[in-house]
Amino acid sequence: MKLARIERSGLAGPEARVVAVEIERGVAIDLERTEQVRLERLGCTPAAARRLAAARLPQSVAAALGSASYREDIAQALASDPPEDAVIELAGVSWLTPLDPPRFRDFMSFEQHHLSARHVLGRPVPDVTYTLPTYYKAGHLSLIAHEQEMPWPGYCEWMDYELEIGFVVGRGGRDLTPEDAASCLFGVALLNDFSARDRQFQETAGNLGPAKGKDFATALGPWIATADELDVLALELEARINGEVWASGSSGSAMWSAGEILAYLSTAEPLVPGELVGSGTLGGGCGLEVGRRLIPGDTVELEGSGLGVLRNRLGEPGPLRWAPPRRSPGLRIDGAHGVAMTELMPPRSDAEPPPYPRLSGP
Amino acid sequence: MKLARIERSGLAGPEARVVAVEIERGVAIDLERTEQVRLERLGCTPAAARRLAAARLPQSVAAALGSASYREDIAQALASDPPEDAVIELAGVSWLTPLDPPRFRDFMSFEQHHLSARHVLGRPVPDVTYTLPTYYKAGHLSLIAHEQEMPWPGYCEWMDYELEIGFVVGRGGRDLTPEDAASCLFGVALLNDFSARDRQFQETAGNLGPAKGKDFATALGPWIATADELDVLALELEARINGEVWASGSSGSAMWSAGEILAYLSTAEPLVPGELVGSGTLGGGCGLEVGRRLIPGDTVELEGSGLGVLRNRLGEPGPLRWAPPRRSPGLRIDGAHGVAMTELMPPRSDAEPPPYPRLSGP
Repeated sequence: MKLARIERSGLAGPEARVVAVEIERGVAIDLERTEQVRLERLGCTPAAARRLAAARLPQSVAAALGSASYREDIAQALASDPPEDAVIELAGVSWLTPLDPPRFRDFMSFEQHHLSARHVLGRPVPDVTYTLPTYYKAGHLSLIAHEQEMPWPGYCEWMDYELEIGFVVGRGGRDLTPEDAASCLFGVALLNDFSARDRQFQETAGNLGPAKGKDFATALGPWIATADELDVLALELEARINGEVWASGSSGSAMWSAGEILAYLSTAEPLVPGELVGSGTLGGGCGLEVGRRLIPGDTVELEGSGLGVLRNRLGEPGPLRWAPPRRSPGLRIDGAHGVAMTELMPPRSDAEPPPYPRLSGP
Repeated sequence: MKLARIERSGLAGPEARVVAVEIERGVAIDLERTEQVRLERLGCTPAAARRLAAARLPQSVAAALGSASYREDIAQALASDPPEDAVIELAGVSWLTPLDPPRFRDFMSFEQHHLSARHVLGRPVPDVTYTLPTYYKAGHLSLIAHEQEMPWPGYCEWMDYELEIGFVVGRGGRDLTPEDAASCLFGVALLNDFSARDRQFQETAGNLGPAKGKDFATALGPWIATADELDVLALELEARINGEVWASGSSGSAMWSAGEILAYLSTAEPLVPGELVGSGTLGGGCGLEVGRRLIPGDTVELEGSGLGVLRNRLGEPGPLRWAPPRRSPGLRIDGAHGVAMTELMPPRSDAEPPPYPRLSGP
């Protein structure tokens, strides 16, 4: 099943509506509306049908994924004949991001990307590449949809794309094993992690990870393909810029599986339904690795088996109303000058910490 | 005004309730209940009073901050006499985090922390310290409350605290100047950014920022003091471990003001109501800087003028059900071995990118 969100006009203005995409027929089925009519046919009053349909198939996919019966509720709705006003032609539809996630974390799980990107930059590959599945916390509040123009931030002169897949978390959990965690995967969507490389490299020198270098826009869509209809280890992926193929490869070239990635995320903190998790860039799947940059007006298309095409045109650089002025060492906001270094304290009298449990792999 | 959330028992189980804290009287006033009774006194039907009170003063502070009249709605409710069942003794109250933020980003805005922490680690201070207000994306889904035990993750042997203040965003916006952004500040709370230093330093070598080194727990509370009742540039702050003072200082020693921090966050992406933003560690405000570590059972107290005391006891190390096994170079999840390096592509025929607007400070 292919789950998407589109914009439809309602009495109170534009509304996000969750739809099932039927590629062969070229239509999208409005799920809540279909469920509402199904329930009326079963004898529910119109008010009860409306209430139950809204509770079972709400317009926030992240909220919906908190329900243990969400997949079954969708299947039940789609097993009935949708009313005419619930069938929308895909041509001309206004796509939204298929997910409104409460959090988005993005991994670097492809070794070739680690090696090639650092080779181009003349940097060594750190040991942690092989000891931990590393990730950064990405911008869940600045996702853009299929066909939406990418807003080019005013501080960027070196724009890049990144070919990735996004994992959508269905069931949540904590301290999961990879086997448990694999069953938490609800589905997969194409993900383009647009990157302002100049700002990214400037800020990551501070050791706190990417921020403004990434969070202006990440594209997701056009739909979420549910995990049951794909082989997550064998997705064929391709990136085209203005129609020219810049990258292609398979999801099977990852170092860490989706189960391992979700298990690691669930360690010592909750994994929650509706989260978005990026696979990281496929080997060769960005301009940095092939020596090319993007320019305004470029059209970037990602394509994946069963995942459709995610297309975004790059906008013109936006305005920059304010940029931080350079600070002089010792300048404080209260007007004082000079910085005291901290002095070390005497050792604690309660001696060395007890021996904590050591990390142990399975 | 001091805004907090506490847990109360309702008919459907425990509920978060937003309260105004009155320190002198030793009580908390349940805002929604007080508003409900005020509206009934004005002639609203009980059903209408309940509906309006729930809409004006909801139990999610982040959602409430989306309302342009939230401050006035609180003041209006508190101007009336609260009913007896809306007045709760603070002694024995079950505190929740005062905010349920949709995002949490944490800065490093104190120069002394930059210098001292890196001095202890024998690392140079990067230039970006003086050119950008740097931050990492923190764990908005693993905040812990005043008096809640800090869950010690099983992978950590080197635990630390961090003395910070948290800025709560009231009004949102995009591409704000520091002057505009300063008026977006709703209030301030004490914030303890617990840090698993061993995991933090291991993972930040990968250039993606802290993750498991931080996201197991961040303490926030006990309340949010609204910006109108404090001088954000002159908060006196102190940290005590088991009653011993380990750090003290003033918020005025920051390099970047709250207005500059919020303006930078709003650049090229939306700042949204209810976000939490950390100031970063006060100079000397962590064990790393003074050569000390925390051990299980320690009690960490942060105190600030007008902000109260935020107290957390450290739990015992938790279980570790799974840890990532070390990878060998060339191992892929599809079973294949060997990694191809990407080849550079020929230069683009559309020549060099156009000259984008250059960064310019005011």
